[in-house]
Parts: sequence; structure tokens; C-alpha cells
Amino acid sequence: MSNQYLDPNLKVFSLNSNRDLAKEIASVIGVELGKCSVQRFSDGEIQINIEESIRGCDVYVIQSTSSPVNEHLMELLIMIDALKRASAKTINIVMPYYGYARQDRKARAREPITAKLAANLLETAGATRVITLDLHAPQIQGFFDIPIDHLMGVPILSEYFKNKAVEGDVVIVSPDHGGVTRARKMAERLKAPIAIIDKRRPKPNVAEVMNIVGNIDGKVAILIDDIIDTAGTITLAANALVENGAAEVYACCTHPVLSGPAIERIQNSNIKELVVTNSIALPEEKKTDKIVELSVAPLIGEAIIRVHEEQSVSTLFD
Amino acid sequence: MSNQYLDPNLKVFSLNSNRDLAKEIASVIGVELGKCSVQRFSDGEIQINIEESIRGCDVYVIQSTSSPVNEHLMELLIMIDALKRASAKTINIVMPYYGYARQDRKARAREPITAKLAANLLETAGATRVITLDLHAPQIQGFFDIPIDHLMGVPILSEYFKNKAVEGDVVIVSPDHGGVTRARKMAERLKAPIAIIDKRRPKPNVAEVMNIVGNIDGKVAILIDDIIDTAGTITLAANALVENGAAEVYACCTHPVLSGPAIERIQNSNIKELVVTNSIALPEEKKTDKIVELSVAPLIGEAIIRVHEEQSVSTLFD
Amino acid sequence: MSNQYLDPNLKVFSLNSNRDLAKEIASVIGVELGKCSVQRFSDGEIQINIEESIRGCDVYVIQSTSSPVNEHLMELLIMIDALKRASAKTINIVMPYYGYARQDRKARAREPITAKLAANLLETAGATRVITLDLHAPQIQGFFDIPIDHLMGVPILSEYFKNKAVEGDVVIVSPDHGGVTRARKMAERLKAPIAIIDKRRPKPNVAEVMNIVGNIDGKVAILIDDIIDTAGTITLAANALVENGAAEVYACCTHPVLSGPAIERIQNSNIKELVVTNSIALPEEKKTDKIVELSVAPLIGEAIIRVHEEQSVSTLFD
Amino acid sequence: MSNQYLDPNLKVFSLNSNRDLAKEIASVIGVELGKCSVQRFSDGEIQINIEESIRGCDVYVIQSTSSPVNEHLMELLIMIDALKRASAKTINIVMPYYGYARQDRKARAREPITAKLAANLLETAGATRVITLDLHAPQIQGFFDIPIDHLMGVPILSEYFKNKAVEGDVVIVSPDHGGVTRARKMAERLKAPIAIIDKRRPKPNVAEVMNIVGNIDGKVAILIDDIIDTAGTITLAANALVENGAAEVYACCTHPVLSGPAIERIQNSNIKELVVTNSIALPEEKKTDKIVELSVAPLIGEAIIRVHEEQSVSTLFD
Amino acid sequence: MSNQYLDPNLKVFSLNSNRDLAKEIASVIGVELGKCSVQRFSDGEIQINIEESIRGCDVYVIQSTSSPVNEHLMELLIMIDALKRASAKTINIVMPYYGYARQDRKARAREPITAKLAANLLETAGATRVITLDLHAPQIQGFFDIPIDHLMGVPILSEYFKNKAVEGDVVIVSPDHGGVTRARKMAERLKAPIAIIDKRRPKPNVAEVMNIVGNIDGKVAILIDDIIDTAGTITLAANALVENGAAEVYACCTHPVLSGPAIERIQNSNIKELVVTNSIALPEEKKTDKIVELSVAPLIGEAIIRVHEEQSVSTLFD
Amino acid sequence: MSNQYLDPNLKVFSLNSNRDLAKEIASVIGVELGKCSVQRFSDGEIQINIEESIRGCDVYVIQSTSSPVNEHLMELLIMIDALKRASAKTINIVMPYYGYARQDRKARAREPITAKLAANLLETAGATRVITLDLHAPQIQGFFDIPIDHLMGVPILSEYFKNKAVEGDVVIVSPDHGGVTRARKMAERLKAPIAIIDKRRPKPNVAEVMNIVGNIDGKVAILIDDIIDTAGTITLAANALVENGAAEVYACCTHPVLSGPAIERIQNSNIKELVVTNSIALPEEKKTDKIVELSVAPLIGEAIIRVHEEQSVSTLFD
Repeated sequence: MSNQYLDPNLKVFSLNSNRDLAKEIASVIGVELGKCSVQRFSDGEIQINIEESIRGCDVYVIQSTSSPVNEHLMELLIMIDALKRASAKTINIVMPYYGYARQDRKARAREPITAKLAANLLETAGATRVITLDLHAPQIQGFFDIPIDHLMGVPILSEYFKNKAVEGDVVIVSPDHGGVTRARKMAERLKAPIAIIDKRRPKPNVAEVMNIVGNIDGKVAILIDDIIDTAGTITLAANALVENGAAEVYACCTHPVLSGPAIERIQNSNIKELVVTNSIALPEEKKTDKIVELSVAPLIGEAIIRVHEEQSVSTLFD
Repeated sequence: MSNQYLDPNLKVFSLNSNRDLAKEIASVIGVELGKCSVQRFSDGEIQINIEESIRGCDVYVIQSTSSPVNEHLMELLIMIDALKRASAKTINIVMPYYGYARQDRKARAREPITAKLAANLLETAGATRVITLDLHAPQIQGFFDIPIDHLMGVPILSEYFKNKAVEGDVVIVSPDHGGVTRARKMAERLKAPIAIIDKRRPKPNVAEVMNIVGNIDGKVAILIDDIIDTAGTITLAANALVENGAAEVYACCTHPVLSGPAIERIQNSNIKELVVTNSIALPEEKKTDKIVELSVAPLIGEAIIRVHEEQSVSTLFD
Repeated sequence: MSNQYLDPNLKVFSLNSNRDLAKEIASVIGVELGKCSVQRFSDGEIQINIEESIRGCDVYVIQSTSSPVNEHLMELLIMIDALKRASAKTINIVMPYYGYARQDRKARAREPITAKLAANLLETAGATRVITLDLHAPQIQGFFDIPIDHLMGVPILSEYFKNKAVEGDVVIVSPDHGGVTRARKMAERLKAPIAIIDKRRPKPNVAEVMNIVGNIDGKVAILIDDIIDTAGTITLAANALVENGAAEVYACCTHPVLSGPAIERIQNSNIKELVVTNSIALPEEKKTDKIVELSVAPLIGEAIIRVHEEQSVSTLFD
Repeated sequence: MSNQYLDPNLKVFSLNSNRDLAKEIASVIGVELGKCSVQRFSDGEIQINIEESIRGCDVYVIQSTSSPVNEHLMELLIMIDALKRASAKTINIVMPYYGYARQDRKARAREPITAKLAANLLETAGATRVITLDLHAPQIQGFFDIPIDHLMGVPILSEYFKNKAVEGDVVIVSPDHGGVTRARKMAERLKAPIAIIDKRRPKPNVAEVMNIVGNIDGKVAILIDDIIDTAGTITLAANALVENGAAEVYACCTHPVLSGPAIERIQNSNIKELVVTNSIALPEEKKTDKIVELSVAPLIGEAIIRVHEEQSVSTLFD
Repeated sequence: MSNQYLDPNLKVFSLNSNRDLAKEIASVIGVELGKCSVQRFSDGEIQINIEESIRGCDVYVIQSTSSPVNEHLMELLIMIDALKRASAKTINIVMPYYGYARQDRKARAREPITAKLAANLLETAGATRVITLDLHAPQIQGFFDIPIDHLMGVPILSEYFKNKAVEGDVVIVSPDHGGVTRARKMAERLKAPIAIIDKRRPKPNVAEVMNIVGNIDGKVAILIDDIIDTAGTITLAANALVENGAAEVYACCTHPVLSGPAIERIQNSNIKELVVTNSIALPEEKKTDKIVELSVAPLIGEAIIRVHEEQSVSTLFD
Repeated sequence: MSNQYLDPNLKVFSLNSNRDLAKEIASVIGVELGKCSVQRFSDGEIQINIEESIRGCDVYVIQSTSSPVNEHLMELLIMIDALKRASAKTINIVMPYYGYARQDRKARAREPITAKLAANLLETAGATRVITLDLHAPQIQGFFDIPIDHLMGVPILSEYFKNKAVEGDVVIVSPDHGGVTRARKMAERLKAPIAIIDKRRPKPNVAEVMNIVGNIDGKVAILIDDIIDTAGTITLAANALVENGAAEVYACCTHPVLSGPAIERIQNSNIKELVVTNSIALPEEKKTDKIVELSVAPLIGEAIIRVHEEQSVSTLFD
């Protein structure tokens, strides 16, 4: 490592969800990852050994609560407990992907608000700060009473499309009603108009129809979402766009959950390219030729340095 | 009062923000409002006297934190403190309008999340439940760890337009990107399509343009928002709709904040009728001929009865 | 169900760890299990739907945090959050097996105390009472500030051996130093002496030796432990007992974790019979002919009734 | 500014209640006031923008919760929330005047204890220390669990009278029963005797009479109180003193609330001079010729420096 | 017991500080004291056995934290812990005398506020309500966030003197500056004037002088205080009153701490009679002929009944 | 003091339980004990004066909660409150002996868990870290959510016996079932076998018999316990060992509570020497010729230095 970070009180640990990203972040900062083993006992209980003293240190723990989410969340909570009892000065949780974020309100009677529960659990365990990226709803910041640094992935995705020589006029498309604000942010960066997919059932017992609100005819459509999970909505949207006259369709998201039939659907869809970040580790079998992965390590590494040195993080986005 | 509610342990108190609504709610339930004076000392400090014993009672306090929001919020917090110290069994806060709801995330560096702060203050003071209506963001439910019953005003507004004989095809219009989900909920109830106003500055130092995404030509447009505050956005939207071919324009919202130039703007706009609820008390001078006020008292009164009798509240919306 | 329990405010719900036991407990009480689905989304996030109103009810949730422990613990935490937000009156957690109980102290530097963390998480989520069975260390009761009813499984195991016509003198054997108190409790009930296995490495780099402290010669040895996990200790102990002159060897435990090589080891060991309870559900493939399973449902069902009716639970053990 | 304070981590911010005092304090310390705008949205909601990074800083926020008390208290709470979320190291609340201090106990049934509520709200929002002056009751210190530095204004008032060449013997007079301890503190500093006004209704339905307990005949009476609000008590006391033989009457207090008819009453009274501090900002129209204003800025500035440099604050009063 | 209280869920327990008063209170209510032994282990640790089930009961624990205060306070805290873990529904602490009340503010640098600490400890242990009598400062009510019922002993003392045929004019005297408000309350009930003892050192290194503020000449003086501890102040005051012309001197207080030389001083003083309540148990050797003891059991018993039956307690004082 | 510790922010205070040990620890570190008086008022209330500024300091308070335990615990809690309000940076509680540790679980119905209560009280008062020695159960670490450094006294005791030329084979004996793990730890250090005393009543109404499990014939027995209180168990054990053939008997423990008849029993027993530490101060009359006292000051002093300098404490035991 050429650029070694000088303050030995800054410690970065990785748990199991995304070790490659953690290594990259550590390299950006200029530190070695802290020594720590995160194993399972024979019955599946998590066993954590922190193998170096962290008394009085500012510790950054990198863990996306991606699938298997319950394993990854419990690893994080147990690690926080261990750090607290081992007298860490501050315990900074770096969650490039915040799992359970979609359960952020009671949509129906007697539902949990699991995203708030996760926030409460993290604070109870002893976290003193959270650094995260593109929360499903920005209001989740308010689920915490500890400071939270909310980084943005949309600029990284936008930059990619700016640099790509797309032929023709571009339109940014939100695949559903909830994502219009996000689409508009990218639209502003690319100076493009927006459109929205208004999926609706015309009458009971009739199949849903993908209405397109806005003009996409002959344009290069870029679908944007924060999370792509089973890829059902995005691929139906892509096909509807082509059927309704779009010249070609790109898709992008910050968090590639890509569970179940996602990869197959994407491969079979009209999506020309799916651009994602490495906030969630993609296993090799999901890294198809349609998928482009951008790294958030420089962004997160820089944010950690600024937090540690008590500089403004907001200026990262100016 | 013909329908007297039998359980004397249910007590309803009103503070100063919306006494007419409180009286109406009490009447729906079948109780007298609890005796309580809420005055100001000469220097402006709030003085609350609860004039009947509430030991062991389930108390419902009705207070919108509408303007003057700080006065109304402090009244509520002080009332909760008094009830707690006077040994109320449960303290149920009924906030038809939840003030500060728009400060629900850090949009810029070093901003407060005032909506979360308000939730923390209410819990600290001693509230044991919140009943509220059409929160600006449904995620605000997760700002609380006490139970919250979130009622919906959109059905009341939708019902009004269903019963009104509007001539021609209807389109539901969201005045901005954040309100598309709300527009769609009304659109489903009225079986109408949606459109969105995409207000954007074409280039720096040029005036913003109201682009309309979706087809509104020759249609009756109904603009919907949760809150109408200064009415700038909604009246510009209305004018843009007419200029772009809408046959006529209605507007509606749950919470008529209507501050500053709002009434004048609405009177001068193309809006034919503005339909609101009485979640916020309108002073007489704001009740112009364009404004139609629908009552949420039956909805809230029924919710209180169900909460008190431990019946499902969710079935109110089936 | 012949014996129907009359108070509709007592609700029993089962999560996924041990539905057979939950059904049996519900049957002992005389209620149907509450309607509730506990599923996984495609990406593995837990989705809980409570399908009946529980406002104002005393809810008992039955869930052992057995393997997969993180899944089962998160199910429980999310269920508590949902119940809290749905206005349950009390949320009583019935954990026949309390996972992570063996991480109950810092045995080495920078270890977590996961058993305490679990207690903190349960209280933070909103649990108001815990009912559990044979905690690995009774001090775990003190990890909670909410009431905890600690039931005893040793009487059930002892009763079994009392009723079994074992030929010859019995000695109760603790397989290690930590279990002597437990062995002695059973010894008192069976009026038998005790012995202890003192596993020790004679000198560095030499294999451990199983010293037997106490007299076992010609006797029927009953090994007792609270948890049998990989069954290494217990099977080595059994073999040592036989080698040192025990007539025959039985083993018993409350919580049959039985992970990894456990079943194979038991089958290949000198253990004649392994008596366990159904605090942890055994999959069919683990129910070998050597394993006898006793039910704790009558004990737990009676405890729930007593808790609900505010009668003494301690008299269950007189 | 000649005396510039060197540590850039000490930041002083002013809210809206008393900007002149804040500037004076900043000048005493040798810093510029932090950049921060505290505005109102059109509907009256408070909008705070902290316009410089305060990550890792020790922040001192100067705000008296004087009239309009609810506005000023909410400004303070929202500012604390913003500072907490912006990662301030410590948040030190400087309240020269602590509003709601007179509601410090339940004097009657079902009253709030608003002074305690305010303390709870400040701690919940995230304050880590309070610096205040002459609390109405010193027990309010115990309403906080965070450290509180309680400064004394009586020495400043006493010093003024010591330096003033008052002709004749002085007597310090408490205008009511609750203020005798305060009167005695000043009496000790001025080596003067005390007297007390015992306002009492001789029999029901008869006007209250101002009995004077102690000898005031021919003396220069100095009335002292902590707060003068409507000035009713103090001006009646002054008149009674003159009627009963006092040579002349001065009055003083730390906190000049001076609400409602206060100024008029004072102007029309026998009070020769009313000496106050600038703990509460006086508008120009209240600065009559009878009123002498002493500054607490040197005291508070010095206290902030000592707190910041971890020196004893108590020695300020030796 | 003739008047048996019917609700078996009301349980009254006594700890060791004042068993006679507890018995009397139980008798007023119409219950037997709960079965409970409060012993010491050989090394002095407190051992509490609650010998009857209290699941779901409303428990009232009677304990003055009188001398030995630390023993009595720890008994109380441990009892609360035991009740909480044994599933009491509510834990109501009845403290006729609240020890450590005089340490209610930081009078000097680096002092504890022990009265607040005690409140925090009681809440942490699990108390849900406090019933107490004549707190040294009424602001101590605000040290609690749980409901507190503050009873008044002054009416009982006043009633005694009303019924006593005292010859001549009466004056109520406060022995120091802090007690004037209390003196005035009694003065109003007895329609008498007040006077104050202003103890002061005329100049450094000269003995303190007892100045009397107010007219006592030829009158029957009744000295009143909340607590009489070493009796130094009260006996010096009594002697000063006689020397300055009082006809005779009575003294009274709610809480007879009477430590150290107190009894001897009183016996040797000019005090004709010292009237106290049984809030603190007096050992036989302190019950001299000068001391009259009034019972607070009827007051406290009635308060407990009202709290339990959810009636207003404030009306006890109308 | 030759080795003066340089950082003035490390302050060590002693309360009343064990001033000699505190002085010794201070000397090991190289500091003077902080100036502080801990007295009693006449009525027994604790009065603490901290006589030097500790703003911003790391304070270590040395206090064993040995007999009189309630006095010592309250001294500690009040000291913590005073330190917190005086703005200490960290408050580190050094409890060589943790009183009430044996009440660490509900052994019977309706018992308190006083060891947990004590932990809660310490955290509520404001402790930020605990340093302690040989807890009765290591699980008590989990009663705290603040960091706890758990030191070991067994190595000190073992070292003593290693260095002592004991003639003949040694056996380490646990005097009861609960202490086997502790016995084994010493056995490993001395490379000796273990034995256990199995005290049991053969049948009802017959005296208990001391069965010895394991071989002690002709050996030098060393009894080990964590706490010796009344010395009943240990002396009966010693006598049983001799009767059953032990050559001679030593005893040792970390915490010499030695209450009631303890000294007499030891003097009259077969115990040749009782080795203890100075975690609890022994009064002169208990320092008989049979008792050997080893100092834990070097261990604790070194631990404090390591904590203060943020070095690993665990390496103290490698």
C-alpha cells in the first residue's frame, strides 16, 4: 500500500457480507483491515474473535445487510457488542446497503416497521454512527438518533451514462410511482426529460397494463431504481418501453439485490445493459455480460477519512 | 347529545388548535369534552389547568400542530406532562395534522429532522399512542416506538369527487414528483389516469417551466396534494394545466395550511374549487367561496371508539 | 378441542422454529394458534402478517431460538415489533430454548456477550415478559429487567428415570466441571451419588485424558447436561465411563441441539439411550432409536395459564 | 477583535432571543459567532441552517427562553437536533434566562411541572451541558442528569449597589415569602438587615394588605427578586414601603421579564431605579430612564472559557 | 379488623423503617400487611423474601428512608426489584419521610444532588408511583417522571394547635429564611402573623446573632419547620424568642429526625412542647414528655385507597 | 513517590471501604489520592466533598462494596453522581470486591436479583466503566452494558502455593458443586488433580454428610473458594478432608468476607493456613496468625494504567 494512513486509532473491520468492497475501501484509506475472525459454531451461532486491541480506537465496521440478511444483521449486532465491551471509542457502522429498508412503514394492518426495528437494534447494541448509501426512503435517516451520513450513489450512475456515448435523445424513466423523485435527480444531471410507468389493472380480474406517462418515442430510455430485487418490474417496464417505441433501454440501480429469477429475467429482457454498484457483492454467476459494476469504494473511503478527520462530508456532493 | 358513550374512563380533551373539530369528534363519540383551561400567563408561558380528575382514565387529546406550530406543539407537550403526573392510564395524542412533517430527512448538510424531534419530544413527555391522518411521508410512523394509528383522508376526498357530477373525463394530477403515489391512490378510486407536473429550469438563470408528463388534453384535471401551504406550486400547476388544454381544474388536499399569499393565489388561479378537510381549522377569512371543507370528525371519532374498545382500526379502510 | 380456554384476550402465536410444540401447547391451554404467516421474500427478508386483530390482547409468542438461530431470533424480534405497533397489551416471549446462551460472559478478550445482547434486543423490540426453560446459566435471568419465568426441565428428565426400571445402583455424572450443580439436582431427586468427568491434558502436546472423579464402578451412569450440541464431550464421557467400569450409560439433556456429527457420534457411542425434551424440534432424520423425546408442552401450557391468570408459577415446582 | 481565542473547536452560536448578548459574549471569548440562519417558513415552522461545519466541535448555543418562550424553546430544541445530527462533539446550552422555571412543582392538582418537562426535552434533543443563571429555584439543577453550571447574578447586582453612593442605612427587602433567602444573600454582601413583605388577606372578601415584617423606617429599601414579570408585587411592595416610612426604594432583579403592564407600573411607582441584567433582551421601548441594565456577558464568557478549558467554574464566585 | 377492604389486588407491605405506622395504615385501609421477611445475611447483605404471590397486584410498600438511611433506601430498592421480577402490576412507594431531601441542589462546587439520585434509583429499580409527605422542597416532585402524590402534614399540625386552647395572641415563626413559605401556610390556617429568625454573623470572627424580624412581643410563638434534625437551630430560636419577649414557645415539625444531641437540646430549651408526626418512628427513649406525636396513618391510608380506586387525591386537602 | 505518573488527567479517589488498598494502588500508579472527604451528617446521611477540580478528567474510584455493604454502595453511587455533575470525562469504578454478587439469579420465587440491581444502579448514577476482580459468577459481566474489565485473583493465589514448598502431593478441592470450575483453574496451574465435597442429607431429618468425590488420601488438600463468608462450609470441608485421610489442609479465597463466626471457626478448624487477598480490608482483630494476605494492588494499579493508556488489559493474564 503506497498511501499509508497515519493515525493508528482509525481501524476498519470487515464482516462477511462484502469483503472485496471492504478491502478496496481499506486500500482507498490506506489501512490494513483489522484482524478479526467471524465464524459459525457447529450449530450456526456466530462466533466473533477480534484479534487486536481496539481500546480507545475509532472503529469502522463494513457490512451490507444484504442476503442472507438475518445472518449479516446479527453478525453486525454481535460485532458492535464485542467492540463496545472491548472499549472502542466510537463504533461507526458502514452499511453500503441497508437491508429491510423497504419495510419502512405500516402499509397494512399489523405489519412491523422492520427498517425502524433494525435502527433500534443497532443503537441498542452500541453503534455511535451510521454511514450508508441511497436509503430506500431518505426518511430512514430519522429512524436513528445517532448521526448518520447518507451518501449518494446516483451521481456515480449518472456519471457513467454521461461518459457513455449514447446515441440519440435520452429519457429517464421511473419504473413506478415511488421512484419519480430519484428519476428526476438523474434527469437533472443528464439534462433529460422524465417518464413514468403507471402499472395498473384496468378493471378487476384483468391483467395489469403498463401505461407510460410521458414521451419516450424514439428515445434512449434509462430506467432507474434504487434496488432491483426480482427484476420483475424493471424488465416488464423495459419491454413496455420498447413496445411503445423506445429506441433502446438501459437500466441502473444502486443496490443489485438480484434475487430469485432476477438474472434470468434481465438476460431475457430488452435491457441492453444494467449498471449497478458494488454496494452488494455479486457472486460470479450473477456477473453476466449485461451487468456493469461501478465501485463505491472511493466514495465510502473518502467519507470515512472525512468523518475521522472531522471535515464536512456534505462537500463530497458539491 | 343523544348517543351518550357509556364508559366514563374515556376522556376527550381539546387544546387550542382546533376546538370546533374537537367538539364535533366528541359529539360523534357521545361524550362531553373534558374540562380544562389552556391559557397564557402575561409573559406568554402556557398555563394548563385540568379541571376534573383523570386518574386511571384513557385520555384522548385533540390537537393539530398547525400554525402557530410552536405554540400548539408546546401546549400538547405540557398537557401530556400534566396528564402523566395526574396518573392518566393512557395518553392518546390525536393529531389530525402533524406539523413539521416536511422536515422528515436531512435534505442538506446540518439540517435537523424536526419531524423526528417532534416524535421524540412526544414520547419523552409521556404519550402512549398517536392517532394521525395522512402523514406527509408514511415513514414518519417509524419515527415512533409507541403505537400509531394512521388514518387516511384520501378516501374522503375521493368520495367527494365521486359524488360530484363532473362532466367529462377525469385525470388525477400530481403537482410534483413526490406526490405521484398519492395521486395514483386517488386515480385508482376514481378509475382515472394520472399525470405529473415536472417543474424544471431548462438551463441556469432561466425561469422554471411546468412540463406536463401525461395526457391531460380536454380533461377535467384534479390536482391532489397532502398539504397546500403557500399554494404556489398548486396554482402554477393549475394554470399550466389550463394552458396545456385541460378543460377545467379542481384541487384538493387533506391539510389546508394556506399560509401567506395562499388564499389570494387560489382566488386568482384557474382552480375552480379547492376541496380540503378540517384537519386544520380555517379562520373565517380563509373560507372563500372556492373552498369546500369536508369533516374528518366521523372518521376520527370512529377511530377513537375502536381504539378504546380494542377493535381493529384497519377495517375502517376496507 | 374439548377444553376450550374462555378468555379471548389470551392469544398464542407460533413462529417457525417449533410449530409442533406450539400446537401442543395451544392444545394444553385450550386455544387455537393465532393466525399469522411468517414467510420470506425472494431475497430472504422476513415477512410477517398477523392475520387477526390483537389490540389489547395478552399475546404469547412461542419460538425457540434454535438453529438457524439468526433466522429464528430475527423472526422473533420482527414479530415483537409488529405486535407492539399493533397495540398488543402484553408481549410474552416463550423461548423453550434460549439460543446464544453459552456466550454469557467474556471468556477471552474482546468477546461479545451475545446472550446479553439477545436480551437487550428482545427488550428493545418490546417484549414485556420472557418464559424460558433451563437456561445455560441461571444468571441469564438477570440479563433482563422485564419479568422472566424460568421453568425447570430437570424434573421431567428425573421423572423419566425414576419411572424406568433401571437395574443396579445409579450414579449421576456431570460431563464437565460446569455442570456439577445440575448433576446434583438430579442426584437429589434420584437419591443417587454423583461423579464428574475431569477432562485434562496431562502435559502440553499430549492428548486429553478423561479422569473420573467419584466412584462409578459397576453402576448405571446417567450423564446429564443442559445442552448437547456436537455430542463430543458426552460421548467421550460415556466411553470413559464404560472403560472405567460403569455397568451401562444413559445420557439426558433438556435441549437437543445435536448439530454436526452429533447423531453419528451418539449412535456409535456406548450411550444406551439419550433422553431429551422437545424444547428444540428434532427433524425426523435425527429421531433415531436411541433418542427418547419427552414433551415440555404440559409444563409450558400450564405456566402460560398461570401467568395469564396471575397465579404463582413457582408452585409448579413444589 | 483584539483577543482572538485560539482553539477553532470552540464554536458559539446565537439563536434569536438575545443576539446582542450573544455578540457581547462572543467578543469576551474572542470568537466570531457561528454562521447560522434561524428563519420561519411561511406557515411559521422554524427553519435552521447551520452554515459551517461543526463536526467534532464543542458548540455553545446562546438562547434565553424568554418571551415568546415557546418559539425560543423550539428554536433551541431544533438547533440541538441539527447539531447532534451534524456530529457536534458536545452541545452546550447557554440559557441566561430559563423560561418556565416558575412551574417547578405541582402547586395544585393536575398541574404540569413544565420546568422539568423543558429539562427532559433538552436532554432528549441531545444537549450535553447547560449553563444558566439564577434559576428560580436552585432545585431545578436536579431536573437535569447532564452537568449544569449555575452562575449567580446576585453578586453583579450587589456590586452595583455597593458602588452606588446610597445615602442612609440600607435594608434589603424580599417582596414575598419565597424570596427571603435571596434577599439575605444580598444583605450579607451589603452588610444590611432584611425585611419581608407579608401580603395577606385579613379576612375573606377583604382586600389584601401589605404587612411589613422587619424594620424599614427611614431606611433606603432595596427590593430584590429573581424575576420581575408584571411588576404587580414589586410595585405594590415599593408603595407599601414608602407608606410605612422607607426613605426611598430601589428594586433589582436578574431577569427582567417585564410583561404586560410592567413598564407602566414601574414608571408610576415609587421605585426610584430598577436594576436588571441583560439575561433577557429588553426592546428599546422598555428601556426607560428608571431602568439600569448590567451585562452578564463577562460572567458568561468567562464561564464558557473555563468550561472549554476544563477549569473550575466555581472559583468564579470565590 | 372490622372494615375489611374487599379488593384482594391491593397489597400493602412494610419494610423495616416504620412498622408501627405501616400496621396502622393497613388497619385504616382494612387489609393485613403482606407476608414478607426483610433480614440481613451474616455479612450485612439484605435478604428479602416475599412470602405470598403478588402477580398482577397493585403493591404499596411503606418505607421512610429515615436513619439508618442507606439501609432503608437499599431495602426499598431491593424490594422494588423483587416485586418487579415477581410481576407486580404496579409498585407504589409510600415514603412518609423522603431521606436525603436536603441535598436537593448543588450548593457548592462538586456536590452531588443526592435527592435526585435517590429519585433516579427508585425509577430505575422499577417504582411506578411515589406517595410522600411534606418534601423538604416541593421541587423534588419534579425529580420524578412517574406520578407522585405529595401529601401535606401542615394541616395536621395546624389542626392540633387550633384545637389546643393556647392563651394569648399567636405568632408563627420560621426558624430560618428558607422556611418562611411554610410558616405562612400555618399562619393562614391559624389566622396569625409571622416572624422570622434572621441568624447572622455581625462581622467576621464574631458569634452569630439571632435577629428577629417581625413582632413577637408578649405573644405565643409557634416555631415550625419541616425537619428537625439536631435541633440546634430550633432551640436557639426558641431561646431567642423568649429573650426577646415571647410569652411562650411551641415548636412543631412533620419529620422528627432528632439525631445526635437533639433530644437533650429540646429538653434543655425553652420549647414548651414539640409537636411531630409519626412519619419517622421515634424510639422509646426519644419519646420524652415534651414531645407530642400525631399520626399520619389516616391521611396516608385514605390516600392509598383513593389512588387504588382512581379517585382524586387532591380533594383530601380541600 | 519515586515513580510519578505524568498525565494529570488520571485521578484516583478512595471512598471508605478500603483506604489502605487505595493508597497502595495509587502508589503503584504513581499518583496521590484525590482530595475528597466522605463523612456522615448527624443523622447518618452521606456527605461527600470533592475538594479538587476534576473537570474533563478520567476518574477512578476505588471502593469494595464489602460490609457494611449498603453504606459502601451508597457512598459509591453518591460519589458517581457528584463526579457526573462536576463534569468528569469518564467515571471508572474500581470494585475489587463486588458485594451482593451471590444474589445473581432468582433461586426461589419472588427473589430479587440484587447483583443486577446494583449494576443498574451504578449505570444509572453515571458510571462509564467497571474494573473488578473474581466475580462470584462471570455472567455478572453481562449485567452491565458499559465496558467491564474482569481481573483474576486465582493466579495470585496459585502463585503463592507454587512458591510455597508444600510437602507431598497436592489436590485442589472445591468445597461445593458450584466451585468446581474455579478449583480446576487452580489445579491446572499447579498441575494437580481435583476433588469435590458433595454435602448432602442422606434422608430427611438426618444430618448432612460431607461426601468426598475424588481421591484425597494422604494428600495435601488446598480448598479454594471465591468468597469465604461465615466459613461454615470451608471449615466443615477441612475437617471432613482430614477425617477422610488428607495429610493437611490449606484454604484460600479471593474475597475474605469473614463475617460472624468466621474467624473463630477458622481458628478452631483443621485449616493450617487461610490465604486471602486484600480485596476486602481486614480489621486488625481478624488478622490472625492463620491468615496470609496477598495484595492485589500491583494487579489493579497495572490495570488502571493500561485502561488509561488504552492498552490491552487481557495481556495481563497471558
